Amino acid sequence: MADPAFTSSDAVRSAKPLKHVRTATFAGPHRLELGGELPAITVAFEIYGDLSPEKDNAILVCHALSGDSHVARHDGDDDPGWWEALVGPGRHIDTRRHCVIGVNVLGGCRGTTGPGSINPATGRPWGDDFPTVTIGDMVDVHRLLLDHLGITALKAVVGGSMGGQQAMLLAIRHPTRVRGCALLATAPRVHSLSLAFDVVARNAITQDADFNGGDYYDGPHPAHGLAIARMLGHITYLSRAAMEAKFAADRMKPRDVRTQFEKRFSVGSYLAYQGDRFVERFDANTYLRLSLAIDLFDLGATTTELAQAFAPATCRFLVVSFTSDWLFPPDQSMDLVGALVALGKSVSSCDVRSGAGHDAFLLESELPVYGGLVRGLIDRLDRDAANQGPDAGDGHLDPLGHGATNVFYSRRLDYDRVLDLIPRDASVLDLGCGNGGLMARLARRGQRRVVGVERDEGAVLTAVSRGLDVIHADLDKGLSMFSDGQFDIVVLSHTLQAVLDVERVLREMARVGRRGIVSFTNAAYRQHRRILADDGRVPDFGGGGTHRWWNTPVVRPCSIADFEDCCRAFGLKVLSRHYLDTHRGGEEVVHDANLQADLAIVELGR
Amino acid sequence: MADPAFTSSDAVRSAKPLKHVRTATFAGPHRLELGGELPAITVAFEIYGDLSPEKDNAILVCHALSGDSHVARHDGDDDPGWWEALVGPGRHIDTRRHCVIGVNVLGGCRGTTGPGSINPATGRPWGDDFPTVTIGDMVDVHRLLLDHLGITALKAVVGGSMGGQQAMLLAIRHPTRVRGCALLATAPRVHSLSLAFDVVARNAITQDADFNGGDYYDGPHPAHGLAIARMLGHITYLSRAAMEAKFAADRMKPRDVRTQFEKRFSVGSYLAYQGDRFVERFDANTYLRLSLAIDLFDLGATTTELAQAFAPATCRFLVVSFTSDWLFPPDQSMDLVGALVALGKSVSSCDVRSGAGHDAFLLESELPVYGGLVRGLIDRLDRDAANQGPDAGDGHLDPLGHGATNVFYSRRLDYDRVLDLIPRDASVLDLGCGNGGLMARLARRGQRRVVGVERDEGAVLTAVSRGLDVIHADLDKGLSMFSDGQFDIVVLSHTLQAVLDVERVLREMARVGRRGIVSFTNAAYRQHRRILADDGRVPDFGGGGTHRWWNTPVVRPCSIADFEDCCRAFGLKVLSRHYLDTHRGGEEVVHDANLQADLAIVELGR
Repeated sequence: MADPAFTSSDAVRSAKPLKHVRTATFAGPHRLELGGELPAITVAFEIYGDLSPEKDNAILVCHALSGDSHVARHDGDDDPGWWEALVGPGRHIDTRRHCVIGVNVLGGCRGTTGPGSINPATGRPWGDDFPTVTIGDMVDVHRLLLDHLGITALKAVVGGSMGGQQAMLLAIRHPTRVRGCALLATAPRVHSLSLAFDVVARNAITQDADFNGGDYYDGPHPAHGLAIARMLGHITYLSRAAMEAKFAADRMKPRDVRTQFEKRFSVGSYLAYQGDRFVERFDANTYLRLSLAIDLFDLGATTTELAQAFAPATCRFLVVSFTSDWLFPPDQSMDLVGALVALGKSVSSCDVRSGAGHDAFLLESELPVYGGLVRGLIDRLDRDAANQGPDAGDGHLDPLGHGATNVFYSRRLDYDRVLDLIPRDASVLDLGCGNGGLMARLARRGQRRVVGVERDEGAVLTAVSRGLDVIHADLDKGLSMFSDGQFDIVVLSHTLQAVLDVERVLREMARVGRRGIVSFTNAAYRQHRRILADDGRVPDFGGGGTHRWWNTPVVRPCSIADFEDCCRAFGLKVLSRHYLDTHRGGEEVVHDANLQADLAIVELGR
Repeated sequence: MADPAFTSSDAVRSAKPLKHVRTATFAGPHRLELGGELPAITVAFEIYGDLSPEKDNAILVCHALSGDSHVARHDGDDDPGWWEALVGPGRHIDTRRHCVIGVNVLGGCRGTTGPGSINPATGRPWGDDFPTVTIGDMVDVHRLLLDHLGITALKAVVGGSMGGQQAMLLAIRHPTRVRGCALLATAPRVHSLSLAFDVVARNAITQDADFNGGDYYDGPHPAHGLAIARMLGHITYLSRAAMEAKFAADRMKPRDVRTQFEKRFSVGSYLAYQGDRFVERFDANTYLRLSLAIDLFDLGATTTELAQAFAPATCRFLVVSFTSDWLFPPDQSMDLVGALVALGKSVSSCDVRSGAGHDAFLLESELPVYGGLVRGLIDRLDRDAANQGPDAGDGHLDPLGHGATNVFYSRRLDYDRVLDLIPRDASVLDLGCGNGGLMARLARRGQRRVVGVERDEGAVLTAVSRGLDVIHADLDKGLSMFSDGQFDIVVLSHTLQAVLDVERVLREMARVGRRGIVSFTNAAYRQHRRILADDGRVPDFGGGGTHRWWNTPVVRPCSIADFEDCCRAFGLKVLSRHYLDTHRGGEEVVHDANLQADLAIVELGR
């Protein structure tokens, strides 16, 4: 079955026993969160790379619904693992430097105690008697395993989807044991549409005539129901674009698969195949338990609730979503980010552009961005351990994040002035931070707290790799992830002229910060006036010199006088004004700044 | 069950017999498209309003998967119909003026011959022996009914979802019988994601232990499978936002419904309830037939294939999509529009802003826009019959479609010049047409063909109501719905400065049209120069006088000299230049236009 349409990220994994799996058994009784207890729990796990003598290089990788402990291959003969793209020697999670632990969750069917395990009280499989499992129960078992391995603190915990739920709960419940937490394609609770699909999938299993109330181990398993659940899963893991790419061209040409299911369309034969293969390796009762655990997981719906939930965490967070993921959509990641920022936690986020849907977090094709981000987090944790600050970097790219450089910006005279206006103990939000030039300078002089917002994915990746806290967001869509008065100072350094909704951005600045610092190119600078008046051309109002009127990032040029109007219109108080002529060495302009200054830095209050 | 979360557009309809249904029976044999034949076909239909003596006021309304002939209530005692919002006395489809026909499709279970009907050869229900039904078969039966009613030409055929598929095929197969065709929330073929859901739904039915190969009429029906299919349907009819609005607040508080299905979450109890109720009124074999008919319907994947399919049609088209519909998403409507435009057909389209998902086309809440559009089409057909052109209208609103007016634009001097540049036999595409001021003038002087593109929903509704062909689209996203060299002339009247991606729009203009006419406000007009040079303010570069620098629609100001640069950069040939000083009565400026003219009209060729 080498047909590319039939391959999938969650590749049809073999039902063969895992060669390198180890187990540990913990005597009970273990009480579970929602009632019921287990007499003893066996945990299946795999280890990649060596634990350092200080035991400070361990990274726990948590799996999603249908995963297991086999994260990656152990050697050339081994079967590939489910996160082969990310984990391995020389990979972004480098097993030559780190000790990676893959662990099968409680309730699973790949070595860890689950509904298919023998209930010692009866000598028969637990079946429906196996208690309801929560993400919290899974995390409790992870902690037992860490104790068993003698690991008091993980460098990081990493997980996508249900794996992300485990990762965030571990960071919350055991803050001293987690220094970094990378959350991919996950959410603090599934939204109602995802929940609805899970309900239908469970109904398909429990209504299967062979389900027999979960007591089916002596007879035929509820294969039709489980296969239908799996088909639904496969649909929701992909995006519409990914589905079309696989099946649109030959939709009426199904593959010749042996199945009881409809195989009239190519997508039908694909779903039948995936459903049938899944049944060979997965247990329906495990599916029910894990699917329900995902749905029951609920850290809150509002920023306030989420902030309460995350309050105990102390680690650095990385939150990664994927633009086409509709099962764990980007805005849910942003809810998480909002709560973490509100709490003053260290967090970066990126909404990775991808057409691959929820599956994206597993794919090699999307690795350059999400892998780079995860590596950025791990590198930063290493720098933390070595007491190093963020990378100052060398280039100060175009402040508008569009990649252009010129002599003016490479000097970034505005940075010096902006720095002077910011007390060292102030918390700072840099809106339109680009790759973090100003942030790095603030951080290196010991600024208490610096957070950036940037809309360009590449700039976010660079800033994260430098070791900065950057939120990937578009200012024109508002700043609802930030709460009122959350920062001492909000900086808009050459950003305002690149947004369309100036009013919204200024109002959000005033809402979120106690003071604002806005720097911009004065459109009425003498040279600009001359260009329009004498040359009859629209001047370059600060686009960086490499753009033309039809593609400049500056879409809202304004003069100093215009900006003052705007402040009056929106009720913003000007606290101080700093007008410079950068063409004359950056000297401060005192007289007729609207003519003589090209760079304006205005400090605003409410 | 008055709980608002449990109501749905496709309201839980009663299984009661329809009081006002009529039937007609057509002797056979009838051969179906994919083989098999039926000896006789009975059609169930309902009539609302009176057929005119000329029989020229009939409107056929086609239903979606779970609908029937009961479009609306006939009187106060009657049960509500499924398109009650749209159809009735004084409604947008006004049964005081029009004769509306609702018809149950072939293969249905509400009166028209279907798998549950008695097969005269056996005296038992057809069951699985009922042949595969296509949309084409349904349309053939509609035609029999029209003949029976003596209607040679419908004023319009209207349908949403599967109803839209019937409507478009009727317009294609019987062009002389359809004068107008309104297509809502539909597609020329379902995309792979929708198709995949249908496959899973059918598998749920056919794998139900009670399905018995479709021969279940003597025993229990496959209720679990059909209910699961229905649950899936309900999920895909809603948007995520609509689901969250219904269920997020009380997700853990299910309603107390009697059901065998999971009811742990509020959305679970909702799905269980909808599934159980559906089984009471719908036949599983009909579900399989209709669902498959939807999936088999395929007018083509490319513009070329679609244009071949639609070539025979002669009616006016209206294509309506809804922004949050992911089952029949807006871009599929745009595929339809592209093919119709390529063929030179009369077509308008609108992507209605809605959070309601696919269901939107049935909802009262979205009626002001989609109802207004349908009424606009019907009114236009009435004007056609009376040989009236489009409504000239009175107001010439802000050309940028932002609603502002001023003295300058109300005179629209540029229109006169633009009109002079357009031969009467030229086909014209007006990009950024607003509410259609220029188009109406072109149409009223007898222009051969005029099509507009506008991004503002309200302006589109106005233009459609005026009787113009307007496509709802955002120029910044390209013009892929138009094919190369399709129009003689493409007009950008005060539009270019309001788009962000000037290069793309100009290149698309050059691709789609043989000539271009671009009008814009000259940023280097003497008054603008003076404002920047003397006042130190960024001038209003043509925003209409009511905006400020922070909210003007003009984001790409340019001078005449700048525009010439741009034409050179993109290899556009300037064919003629028309520079006016509208502040001096619109006189033509010959000398130093870049200083003396405020309005530039430039004719471009490749």
